Amino acid sequence: MPLGERYAGDKSESRYCGVETEFNADMPNLLSFNIHGGFDFVLATLNSTMQMDPNYRPSLVDNATSRSHALPFAGSDLVLSPSQWSSHVVGKISSWLDLDSEDETLRKDSEVVLKQEIAWASHLSLQACLLPTPKGTSCANYAKCLNQILQNLGNMQLWLRIPLEKSEDDTKPPNPDFMGNGQIDSWELWNSFRLLSEHHSQLSVALDIMSSLPSASSVTRWFGEPSFLTNARGYPCLSKRHQRLATAFFDHSIQVVISGRPVHNIPLTVSEPNVDKNVEGGWRHPLKSYLDYVAFLYQKMDPLPEQERFEFGYRDYLQSPLQPLMDNLEAQTYEIFEKDTVKYSQYQRAVAKALVDRVPDENASSVTTVLMVVGAGRGPLVRASLQAAEETERKLKVYAVEKNPNAVVTLHSLVKLEGWEEKVTIISSDMRNWDAPEKADILVSELLGSFGDNELSPECLDGAQRFLKEDGISIPSSYTSFIQPVTACKLYNDIKSHKDLVHFETAYVVKLHRVARLADTQPVFTFVHPEDLTKTNNQRYKKLHFDIPSDTGSTLIHGFAGYFDATLYKDVHLGIEPATATPNMFSWFPIFFPLRTPVYVQPGTPIQVHFWRCCGPTKVWYEWGVTSPSALPMHNTNGRSYWVGL
Amino acid sequence: MPLGERYAGDKSESRYCGVETEFNADMPNLLSFNIHGGFDFVLATLNSTMQMDPNYRPSLVDNATSRSHALPFAGSDLVLSPSQWSSHVVGKISSWLDLDSEDETLRKDSEVVLKQEIAWASHLSLQACLLPTPKGTSCANYAKCLNQILQNLGNMQLWLRIPLEKSEDDTKPPNPDFMGNGQIDSWELWNSFRLLSEHHSQLSVALDIMSSLPSASSVTRWFGEPSFLTNARGYPCLSKRHQRLATAFFDHSIQVVISGRPVHNIPLTVSEPNVDKNVEGGWRHPLKSYLDYVAFLYQKMDPLPEQERFEFGYRDYLQSPLQPLMDNLEAQTYEIFEKDTVKYSQYQRAVAKALVDRVPDENASSVTTVLMVVGAGRGPLVRASLQAAEETERKLKVYAVEKNPNAVVTLHSLVKLEGWEEKVTIISSDMRNWDAPEKADILVSELLGSFGDNELSPECLDGAQRFLKEDGISIPSSYTSFIQPVTACKLYNDIKSHKDLVHFETAYVVKLHRVARLADTQPVFTFVHPEDLTKTNNQRYKKLHFDIPSDTGSTLIHGFAGYFDATLYKDVHLGIEPATATPNMFSWFPIFFPLRTPVYVQPGTPIQVHFWRCCGPTKVWYEWGVTSPSALPMHNTNGRSYWVGL
Repeated sequence: MPLGERYAGDKSESRYCGVETEFNADMPNLLSFNIHGGFDFVLATLNSTMQMDPNYRPSLVDNATSRSHALPFAGSDLVLSPSQWSSHVVGKISSWLDLDSEDETLRKDSEVVLKQEIAWASHLSLQACLLPTPKGTSCANYAKCLNQILQNLGNMQLWLRIPLEKSEDDTKPPNPDFMGNGQIDSWELWNSFRLLSEHHSQLSVALDIMSSLPSASSVTRWFGEPSFLTNARGYPCLSKRHQRLATAFFDHSIQVVISGRPVHNIPLTVSEPNVDKNVEGGWRHPLKSYLDYVAFLYQKMDPLPEQERFEFGYRDYLQSPLQPLMDNLEAQTYEIFEKDTVKYSQYQRAVAKALVDRVPDENASSVTTVLMVVGAGRGPLVRASLQAAEETERKLKVYAVEKNPNAVVTLHSLVKLEGWEEKVTIISSDMRNWDAPEKADILVSELLGSFGDNELSPECLDGAQRFLKEDGISIPSSYTSFIQPVTACKLYNDIKSHKDLVHFETAYVVKLHRVARLADTQPVFTFVHPEDLTKTNNQRYKKLHFDIPSDTGSTLIHGFAGYFDATLYKDVHLGIEPATATPNMFSWFPIFFPLRTPVYVQPGTPIQVHFWRCCGPTKVWYEWGVTSPSALPMHNTNGRSYWVGL
Repeated sequence: MPLGERYAGDKSESRYCGVETEFNADMPNLLSFNIHGGFDFVLATLNSTMQMDPNYRPSLVDNATSRSHALPFAGSDLVLSPSQWSSHVVGKISSWLDLDSEDETLRKDSEVVLKQEIAWASHLSLQACLLPTPKGTSCANYAKCLNQILQNLGNMQLWLRIPLEKSEDDTKPPNPDFMGNGQIDSWELWNSFRLLSEHHSQLSVALDIMSSLPSASSVTRWFGEPSFLTNARGYPCLSKRHQRLATAFFDHSIQVVISGRPVHNIPLTVSEPNVDKNVEGGWRHPLKSYLDYVAFLYQKMDPLPEQERFEFGYRDYLQSPLQPLMDNLEAQTYEIFEKDTVKYSQYQRAVAKALVDRVPDENASSVTTVLMVVGAGRGPLVRASLQAAEETERKLKVYAVEKNPNAVVTLHSLVKLEGWEEKVTIISSDMRNWDAPEKADILVSELLGSFGDNELSPECLDGAQRFLKEDGISIPSSYTSFIQPVTACKLYNDIKSHKDLVHFETAYVVKLHRVARLADTQPVFTFVHPEDLTKTNNQRYKKLHFDIPSDTGSTLIHGFAGYFDATLYKDVHLGIEPATATPNMFSWFPIFFPLRTPVYVQPGTPIQVHFWRCCGPTKVWYEWGVTSPSALPMHNTNGRSYWVGL
């Protein structure tokens, strides 16, 4: 029974809550007990008692030559229906396994049992298995065995159980061995595992939440990982920090499993009368109070804002950026963007301020300002400009320049419909080639991409600048791109699945969700309009240096998230840079620049990255490269993989 | 005129010596002066004076809009013949270029001139160009420009000029910026460059040898790099260390270019009368004494041993290991291996000792020892065993077991030719299946590969052990494999050129030459024969930990070189492990286990690597993985890329 709904039609994975169970030979009873108790699935041991404890277990290796004598190690698959197995049971692999033990017999037994139990779970079509926490300071043999298994595994997911812990002494250089030097950072263990298994998409992490929590920066790292499940202990007396953590994990679509025996003496009839009403005959699952508490935490979260709900389906979904010059937008694309009222009201404010600056009140009735909308689309900026003129009581003459002949058709009908024929002249032309009959006071455009200049606003506006008066105003008057390093397992895996270089050298537009932002953003390229075209060009080079907060611990960087901020006019800005983003605007998702090889960064090591904006006769492209902690191959040399056509 | 010959038919690249020249507008004269002076090629500036000095040069960027006005920047290509350009001239790119300058105009000018000069050199079909040393602490933009150039370059090589220098304070953690913290390690600069340019095969390093030299360990790193040329200054008064360095570079086929003005006041008629005889009319090139000194160093080197000469053509040439069980060897393969007299005399010594131990002198005439050669091939071990029996005056009965029917044909004729019919029984069978009529006292085999067990000696001898007496002797009685981390640019590039995963997950047999061995070898897997087959199997797992000497500096690891050492019997051993290698044996080259991604190792950071020997029903394979300094993907999971068939 899901925890609740944050909004009608809540689809979050976090709504489902599981429970870890003790070994029980009677699986049907175990399942019905817990499902009736309100849980959605159980974490259950699959094997029979025989192998539960290595002390009572004859070594399997000694018997290797007589495999045919092996006793049945698990109950029958017939005790549950196939759909019960696959919907409600997550297999729990024997926790005594130690695949990196110095004891060779234990190590080899562990290998045999691991393979056996996963094969059995796979036979039962379970959706997932929970793998025991690596025991010691090394996990190479464990990872090697899992790799062998993953190579031939069906669809089943493997969840590696990892305690959420990190010692807070970050001054020492990190030790390659997990827990060496008395330092603990369980993220290191997970990181080794997933690097050894090459980010296998069926391997995720199951975090065990302990009574004490590491620093917020260090916990943030996990938001970029495929962490499937939080194993919450100690409910219902969570600290504020635990509560915030649970909420943050819910926000990242992470599931909860309740584990352990009840440690709170809660009377069977609890004080709130309505809690017990639904329970038949007064029976309560012993962990029901804990489940209720998790549901309470889930339900008390702020409802998902409408915009987030609208964008839910786009989360972590990679899109290729538009090619606005080479391609013509489709009607439905215009439709979506035109609905962004926040954006156009910012434009209206900017135009209004510019009009007032340009024409003093005393000249308002005598002077007509010439305003050109370059890239007018289906007319939203024309409307915003006319509204600004009305609001400020300035006289305005508008040229609407648009290269897409399909949009021009709509423009004509809009002008007719609104009765703007006297004020608006429609020009069906590429602004770079148009021979304007007069010069403009104000040039208004909305050519910005997620990374500011990435849809070639600079090149277009350079072309349009010919018909801007020398003291004319461009709206936007400047824009700057920003980046920050991120952990983004899901995005990396999606890109890797293409098995080519091209996808690793492409920037994507993407609604970032399961992402860990590792440092504050920094500005990359700035463009100003109008500019002195004889002195500058649109090539850019920027060297950036990021320091990750010292209490974060080590991290893995899959790429850089990119944003922009634009100054439309004076103090009117517009942008998606997280710290200054314009609220409730939905026209832009961030951009993501991937790295071909994830970069492991130890605490205290700076990240140095270089971005170039390159221009050729027919295209513009970015190149990027990391030089610290160590150099990686340069990305997208000569725009070989990704470029925007002029 | 080459420096000399270390042996008849010397093919080493090191025999050619160049000279760096000052700018001279008269190229034909410059060339004939130096070639007549005894040099093989000149390093010459290609452009005209106009661009020599940025102080006198108008910025190119300001003129970017008027490219058509650019003045000719170089002399005519007609002044030399095409073959003169390509055989005798290496282009020297303007040394003032600073592609990472903070001064944007200088940086952009440098970009334009770099492209222009390399394009000109390419037009002249030069074999190589010398690129100026990066100026500062950063080289990302330089590398980015070179990448763009390399992507469209013909066959020309680019030699990046790097001073051979390293400060010896290795206690501090390294700074990502070259020369940051006052630390200098020019190898870091080169390493960043080649990582950024993805080990491009046309980019090499030209080392400038300075008056003081870094430590031997740190210089060793360069032997694994594509270092084309040593720029030697200060001749002819080299220190002993410089002399040893020159010799070591000669040994690694590295060319010398002499640079600078003469600083020694050497009389035109030198004391040794024969030096001057060849010079026409008494004219001497001002740097002739230096050239003579280099030639002297070259010629005084020990002559290349015959074995090295024989193996010259195999240097750094990757070969797939044999599949001795699945394939039958060819006659010429037997022919080559049988010539390894050192190997068979070691076997003879081992058999002789075993015979004497087995049969006391008093029983020598009464007891007949049964010896079985398993994998007899065309008979060399049969011969060695019979000679051992003769030498020790023991009576011997030999079974020669061989699975290759073609070799058996030769064996029969050998026995007939030698009159061994009474002593030798030939068995045409796979030793794993043979039903022996009696049990053996001694089992002799030569089933070892470069990595010891990699040709499945353990599996074969386990099969043969059935017909060895309980107290019988196996020769070899044990063998151990060894590995060490290496820098091996050439091998890495050859593997990378296949553009697939399979080649990165294959072990190769290779005569290692342009390789830097970064740490002493360590043992990996040991097998002992006979062994208790009920207790052990042939799977193995070994975790290895290498510390690179602290004065080496940072390094890049491309993979692991592998060797073996075998105990034939008691103190008689045989092997290729460098510290203990049997001299003058040529049957085995080392093995090389590559890494999919080169691993950058900073000073003081340990390397941790794991090797597994895995056995399936039809094949045996290795898996390997690095876990420190950071984890890499596991190699060859389930033997997906490389295996040896049973």
